[in-house]
Amino acid sequence: MTVTERMAELGIHLPDPAKPVGSYVPAIQAGSLVVTSGQLPMREGMLVCAGKVGLDVTLEQASAGAGIAVTNALAAAAAVVGGIERIKRVVRVCVYVNSAPGFTDQPKVANGASDLLVKIFGDNGRHARSAVGVSELPLNAAVELDLMVQVAV
Amino acid sequence: MTVTERMAELGIHLPDPAKPVGSYVPAIQAGSLVVTSGQLPMREGMLVCAGKVGLDVTLEQASAGAGIAVTNALAAAAAVVGGIERIKRVVRVCVYVNSAPGFTDQPKVANGASDLLVKIFGDNGRHARSAVGVSELPLNAAVELDLMVQVAV
Amino acid sequence: MTVTERMAELGIHLPDPAKPVGSYVPAIQAGSLVVTSGQLPMREGMLVCAGKVGLDVTLEQASAGAGIAVTNALAAAAAVVGGIERIKRVVRVCVYVNSAPGFTDQPKVANGASDLLVKIFGDNGRHARSAVGVSELPLNAAVELDLMVQVAV
Repeated sequence: MTVTERMAELGIHLPDPAKPVGSYVPAIQAGSLVVTSGQLPMREGMLVCAGKVGLDVTLEQASAGAGIAVTNALAAAAAVVGGIERIKRVVRVCVYVNSAPGFTDQPKVANGASDLLVKIFGDNGRHARSAVGVSELPLNAAVELDLMVQVAV
Repeated sequence: MTVTERMAELGIHLPDPAKPVGSYVPAIQAGSLVVTSGQLPMREGMLVCAGKVGLDVTLEQASAGAGIAVTNALAAAAAVVGGIERIKRVVRVCVYVNSAPGFTDQPKVANGASDLLVKIFGDNGRHARSAVGVSELPLNAAVELDLMVQVAV
Repeated sequence: MTVTERMAELGIHLPDPAKPVGSYVPAIQAGSLVVTSGQLPMREGMLVCAGKVGLDVTLEQASAGAGIAVTNALAAAAAVVGGIERIKRVVRVCVYVNSAPGFTDQPKVANGASDLLVKIFGDNGRHARSAVGVSELPLNAAVELDLMVQVAV
């Protein structure tokens, strides 16, 4: 089964990649590596998961938000390399969680992204991951993440 | 026009790279990639932009601070590879903003670094970027950033 | 002297690498680079350094915790590439310090990891480093770090 077929089966639709809106771009390829910009839980241009996790936002909502953000990251990486089938392996995800004081379940939030990557790519979706709690994020997003993937060259 | 000529035209002077002062170094090359250590808005050994953005430090000051920090990062990368002309492309910038509670304009702070990279390198200066808000930074700096660039090998 | 011999002389024991417990793994190799997941100061499955540095945890304790975390990171990287002798050079360490308000000595905490890397690898242990203060970390760990190393391919 191709990645595209697996995504269809899972009902995951790859969004249009974000347009570059300044001096930075959604993703860059350097050799066989592609790194993305920090991605937020945006859907059709709207932030769909805002606030501090553990206070304004539940763990479940934040985990779903991480899934949306990682889908945006995949769209950004795929656009740079000519399609998601070109992605050979996920290398690394770094997840920043907008954390209420005392919230220490950042890994459970990050699982919303990590589990989706494995559903889509199978064992090639397993990755190194860092998950940390931060005090503020752009637009008051509940979660931000960036992705590094490997492509065949 | 060379990068050096463009910098002269822009009035940007590449500072002397920071001396290694411990077990870490300003930048490391691995294959065609160069990654820098976290850089602060230091000028001639003095921190010139300290405090929390949105409280002690304005957006404009912090954005200027990000520009100083990225100039320091370029100096660090250039020193490792034998000059700024050897830098082929900017790959990634990660910007940590020392954020007052409620400050969510981290991307505008980061623009001070991103815009400068594009002024210097043109389209080769466009990069992937993450910008997050953190609660504390070394020396109470308003901003810290690290850089990944690609060189010809 | 080999790295293994130097570690024996220093009395540093490389722990068993953490088992993958979800969709992410302790470390991934991509070409000649190996990146690890965020590592905590865990020993035999127990977190040994928890709380906010500058409040619950002293600088000395946090620095020791960074040393434990980097040893875990080395174990993760070594397991992926077939032994610590395969590591050619340390490229980058990113250190997240769970910081009490007003604590700005993140670099001194990070030195606990950086100095250990140089003791083990000599000049090949010198690396690029970012150290930032964050408001929350998984399990309330005092420090989290991730590592990028280069191997011969």
